[in-house]
Amino acid sequence: MIYLDNAATTRAYEECNKVLAEYNTKYYFNPSSVYTEGVQVKKDLNSAREHFATTLGCSKEEVYFTSSATESSNIFIKGILTGRKDQEFIFSAGEHSSVNEIAKFIKNKGHITHLINLTKEGTVDLKHLKSLVNENTTLVSIMHVSNETGAVNDLVEVAKIVKGVNNKTLLHVDGVQAYGKFKTNVKALKIDSYAICAHKIHGVKGVGAMYVKSGINVKPDTLGGGQEKGLRSGTENVAGIMSFKLASELMINELELNFEKVKEFKTYFLNEIKNNLQDVVINAETSSSPYIASLSINRIRGEILVHLLQLKGVLISTGSSCSSNSKRSGNRVLEAMGLNKNLIEGSIRVSFSSFNTITEVKEATKIIINAVNELKERMR
Amino acid sequence: MIYLDNAATTRAYEECNKVLAEYNTKYYFNPSSVYTEGVQVKKDLNSAREHFATTLGCSKEEVYFTSSATESSNIFIKGILTGRKDQEFIFSAGEHSSVNEIAKFIKNKGHITHLINLTKEGTVDLKHLKSLVNENTTLVSIMHVSNETGAVNDLVEVAKIVKGVNNKTLLHVDGVQAYGKFKTNVKALKIDSYAICAHKIHGVKGVGAMYVKSGINVKPDTLGGGQEKGLRSGTENVAGIMSFKLASELMINELELNFEKVKEFKTYFLNEIKNNLQDVVINAETSSSPYIASLSINRIRGEILVHLLQLKGVLISTGSSCSSNSKRSGNRVLEAMGLNKNLIEGSIRVSFSSFNTITEVKEATKIIINAVNELKERMR
Repeated sequence: MIYLDNAATTRAYEECNKVLAEYNTKYYFNPSSVYTEGVQVKKDLNSAREHFATTLGCSKEEVYFTSSATESSNIFIKGILTGRKDQEFIFSAGEHSSVNEIAKFIKNKGHITHLINLTKEGTVDLKHLKSLVNENTTLVSIMHVSNETGAVNDLVEVAKIVKGVNNKTLLHVDGVQAYGKFKTNVKALKIDSYAICAHKIHGVKGVGAMYVKSGINVKPDTLGGGQEKGLRSGTENVAGIMSFKLASELMINELELNFEKVKEFKTYFLNEIKNNLQDVVINAETSSSPYIASLSINRIRGEILVHLLQLKGVLISTGSSCSSNSKRSGNRVLEAMGLNKNLIEGSIRVSFSSFNTITEVKEATKIIINAVNELKERMR
Repeated sequence: MIYLDNAATTRAYEECNKVLAEYNTKYYFNPSSVYTEGVQVKKDLNSAREHFATTLGCSKEEVYFTSSATESSNIFIKGILTGRKDQEFIFSAGEHSSVNEIAKFIKNKGHITHLINLTKEGTVDLKHLKSLVNENTTLVSIMHVSNETGAVNDLVEVAKIVKGVNNKTLLHVDGVQAYGKFKTNVKALKIDSYAICAHKIHGVKGVGAMYVKSGINVKPDTLGGGQEKGLRSGTENVAGIMSFKLASELMINELELNFEKVKEFKTYFLNEIKNNLQDVVINAETSSSPYIASLSINRIRGEILVHLLQLKGVLISTGSSCSSNSKRSGNRVLEAMGLNKNLIEGSIRVSFSSFNTITEVKEATKIIINAVNELKERMR
């Protein structure tokens, strides 16, 4: 089996299991306990906080642990709502369903919300962004790297535009597909909130974190024992957080190496596709992360291709979803990039990780090309 | 080291680590994936849902996974707020800080909220409850077993009273200290929502669940990909949930055995205390869970005793907290039971699990009695 769906989730590092076992059955104490054993666990949590602060470029007081990046985005964006109806909100049309659903929620509450157009390359249209920001703009939310196409937004330019027009506007960034893969410095980028999670970088599911710039008044969401400085109550997932720290360390220690590795995978894959298949559009080709390749193939159905590939031992994702009750964002994002219905239906996402090998990628590429040809043959 | 703070958190079963490792590094697929490997993970999640449905006495469609019982209570109670100001809410004065903070939040929103008095035994005063329920009562929230004193509320009587006065009133129960230790059937008890978590029954931290009776309109809290039927978005913590299932199975298979075991511990402990110490009040003595013993010792400070015991290798909790910024509910709950300030300050909580042995308990009891005498000696 060749796993090329790493944008959906990743296989955890074996080392994470060791950390989990250690904290589940040896250092299992509640970090709120007053005895030394509990205090030590609290210190361990703080060492994790320091690690994320260092790698995000903020102070450890600005790092909060959550159960997912979805929760992180919910906490920040809903937490800054004041109820004042003149608050305006701007969201990229390419946002992950988590932020997109929050955008709908805010709109339903009666706030003015705007969607920033995407360019053909899948990044936010900076001119359009500039035209939308005004003195009432409370928040702009733009993801760092698209989970659908890998398109990388230029956050330096984004911040320049947003803060240039209204210095009080808050900038929220969903960094799920960027953290551990791209160097990020939230202070240099003038970001106010950054959401990340463990399971996209070979950590475990159920663990997220967020940076929130100090001084911003964010109302807590989950109320209770006052953990995470009152922002997010509930006994801390110590084992999960410590394994997230480890996964992050392993990823960031090899950041450049991994980047070059997946770049080779993607370059090989796309070259082969271009040389062997007709009628294929490569989405976000010039601006996207080497971890994600998005293709739209004319006259095939992505879903059928994904199923056929699974039978041949290659796991990838569709770029869209035909299911009406699915909240997969593929259709919406590709549509915003200007793709027609046929191309959207024929979209797939192939996503790499440093756990893959070039041998795997070469084998999978051959299988994918053959499968597309097989499907096209059937349709003649 | 003798760990008698199992109401704070428990050591996980070794078997949980194996399940975690399996799902983190072998069956790590995203349950939303369309290929067989992902679909199988989704099926595994559903098998966990079925397990919890069976053990709670509800249908699997009524079980939702969360990251903590705190989150479960937040989702239900905040999710049924309609904004109508004539909604009235009734909370036990003995609730865990999670529900107590939600009560404050609701009060601050302008709703009428009532606190049900506690009896001297730490249970809710049923007569007072009856006097508070009326035709506007939207919700009554009463915990199953007190985390502070172990007091067990008679949920059969509670439901009879609540539903007898107003059949439309919803009954929320925090079942954290009961699930896996007491047989629970939410349908027989006419409960509408029940919150549980893994780390109090030798599962791992960061995993919770809830029963929500079908047909109740609960607004989702965390928005996004629509997981958990839209009630709680975010990629499912598959490994955590599957290890929760295992912990629950192991606990419930031995429910009666464990109950008798900890009952022996508690009986031994309390008898020794009564025979060897003066000026001690045993809280919730007649009505409480064998898993939790709560004592108030005159003229000592609980916090100092806990620290002294830690040096002697016994880990327990204070029954209250002197720290002003702590949200520990001990002070509040013991006060509601009518204890005076002196007794509250001298309170400790000793909580057992089936992982303890009678030898440990005997040893710890001796150490505790000696430590109390040592402290009293110092104060002479």
